[in-house]
Amino acid sequence: MDKAPETVKRILQGEVRAAARLMRELDDGVPAARETLKHLYRHGGRAHIIGLTGSPGAGKSTLTDRLIQYLRQEGKTVGVVAVDPTSPFSGGAILGDRIRMQRHATDEGVFIRSLATRGHFGGLTASARAVITVLDAMGKDYILVETVGVGQDEVEIAATAYTTIVITVPGMGDDIQAIKAGILEVADILVVNKADREGANRTYQELMQMLELRTYTNDRPWRPPVLMTTAKDSEGINELMAAVRQHEEFLQGDERAFQAARVAKVRQELLELLKEGTFRHLVRQLTADGRLEQIIQDILARRNDPYSASESLILDILGPSS
Amino acid sequence: MDKAPETVKRILQGEVRAAARLMRELDDGVPAARETLKHLYRHGGRAHIIGLTGSPGAGKSTLTDRLIQYLRQEGKTVGVVAVDPTSPFSGGAILGDRIRMQRHATDEGVFIRSLATRGHFGGLTASARAVITVLDAMGKDYILVETVGVGQDEVEIAATAYTTIVITVPGMGDDIQAIKAGILEVADILVVNKADREGANRTYQELMQMLELRTYTNDRPWRPPVLMTTAKDSEGINELMAAVRQHEEFLQGDERAFQAARVAKVRQELLELLKEGTFRHLVRQLTADGRLEQIIQDILARRNDPYSASESLILDILGPSS
Repeated sequence: MDKAPETVKRILQGEVRAAARLMRELDDGVPAARETLKHLYRHGGRAHIIGLTGSPGAGKSTLTDRLIQYLRQEGKTVGVVAVDPTSPFSGGAILGDRIRMQRHATDEGVFIRSLATRGHFGGLTASARAVITVLDAMGKDYILVETVGVGQDEVEIAATAYTTIVITVPGMGDDIQAIKAGILEVADILVVNKADREGANRTYQELMQMLELRTYTNDRPWRPPVLMTTAKDSEGINELMAAVRQHEEFLQGDERAFQAARVAKVRQELLELLKEGTFRHLVRQLTADGRLEQIIQDILARRNDPYSASESLILDILGPSS
Repeated sequence: MDKAPETVKRILQGEVRAAARLMRELDDGVPAARETLKHLYRHGGRAHIIGLTGSPGAGKSTLTDRLIQYLRQEGKTVGVVAVDPTSPFSGGAILGDRIRMQRHATDEGVFIRSLATRGHFGGLTASARAVITVLDAMGKDYILVETVGVGQDEVEIAATAYTTIVITVPGMGDDIQAIKAGILEVADILVVNKADREGANRTYQELMQMLELRTYTNDRPWRPPVLMTTAKDSEGINELMAAVRQHEEFLQGDERAFQAARVAKVRQELLELLKEGTFRHLVRQLTADGRLEQIIQDILARRNDPYSASESLILDILGPSS
């Protein structure tokens, strides 16, 4: 516990090595690291968090690279959390084309952290949030959160970021229609990347039409712009960053909406931690007294079923809910 | 409660309308429907569950369609759970090219159910499992579970299915390498679909090389075959089904491994329900007494942090873990 305040101080000063060590210790589940995280959280809340998400092959890493470059030229400090779609079983991070971003590795103003899926029960979002807390405490102006994924991942990134950029590419196949519809709900900015490819204009038009169908009310006043980029040639990056700024100003301009967004984010974060923590705690208790194995055997023999079993366990442990 | 045994009886006889009504009631959270599900679970466990997963645009729906056709020609009954990647906010299901499968809608031996993402806190897996329980109780010989997704979804599907088919296509872009590596871990069978496209042989070779790098021990004796299909022309379907049969026989041939797989599946299912249920129960309790709002306000004011808050709440409610 003596170490924590010293580490906290060094990270608050933006010291890269202290931050990197803390992140490793968090991965390893070192209890003192979690204590440090608690201190850091109370110093955060200043960075603008930008989420980048989209299908595999959409060019998210290249686009992230270009945004880093842009922000650094503006003199802003940048933190990056890149979530790797790797095995939940092997646990290791695979770099892939993320290596391209490593040219920023020698730049003191940029801190890049890759994360792998750690386990089935939702460790990834928790890890990403912890890294964001550290980067935020370090005083980074912008934090870019890059995630591959459709569905669940997008929701999680939407809850983490203030501005969510959804990246599509021309002609991804049949399933893309369904995905686009889902994606619209979480997007603050839509990007058609690889805009030099055939079909880019059609994809652009499709997205615009889908946005037309939505209603924009007082509860949802922001209308996501659709932008075309060719990240590999650095085309459209200025326009994209202008849109990010616009969204940032939009959020800051509406105090009530901004406060509501902050409450929603904190609630989400707290509930996720609570869900994860309660579950782990419970499994530890149920494993220790052998109850879990007994119930599994009963279910296998079809003397019990998982629905009845979980209901009676919950009632037994937590009591009635009202 | 009087209704339950009658509904159970009708579903066990394979009655489509009773099953469809139950699934709707389960979606709507009707308490009696959950009671019915408990009864049905104890009559299940016979169907062979096949998972189909892969990136958007890989042609999963077409392949599923061809497998249905094949199995029906063999006189087998088939249940299908198609998980739609739709908005967690809008809640609605978007059909997309899944409509193609509807030509089986008039076939009494096929039951197709599409699912949408219902909410952030993991309702999708629970819904899919419930549908599988119903289809299994109906006496379906095969249950096909089709999911779009990388990462989390694949783990969930791997936990649900006995045989997991992972579908790739030639030349999906840069990110695909990382995904393939993750995918290998959950795949029992690998398919290169759209094999008439350029680059199919290269993708096939890459997958074979990746499989070479793995070690096959007593704990993991099954080596996933790699197959080429062109689902739209029904090419490679016989070979794919032969591989499914082989995997089925492999599982049945090793009693110890099969039992271990069944224990793991039941454990997974029970723990998921427990996690979800405990969490809901807890949130209801914390909302009712106003504690949740107070804590959120404290965190926003940085007087508290979500890590400390969740730890003390858990300790308060569940007591020490050992």
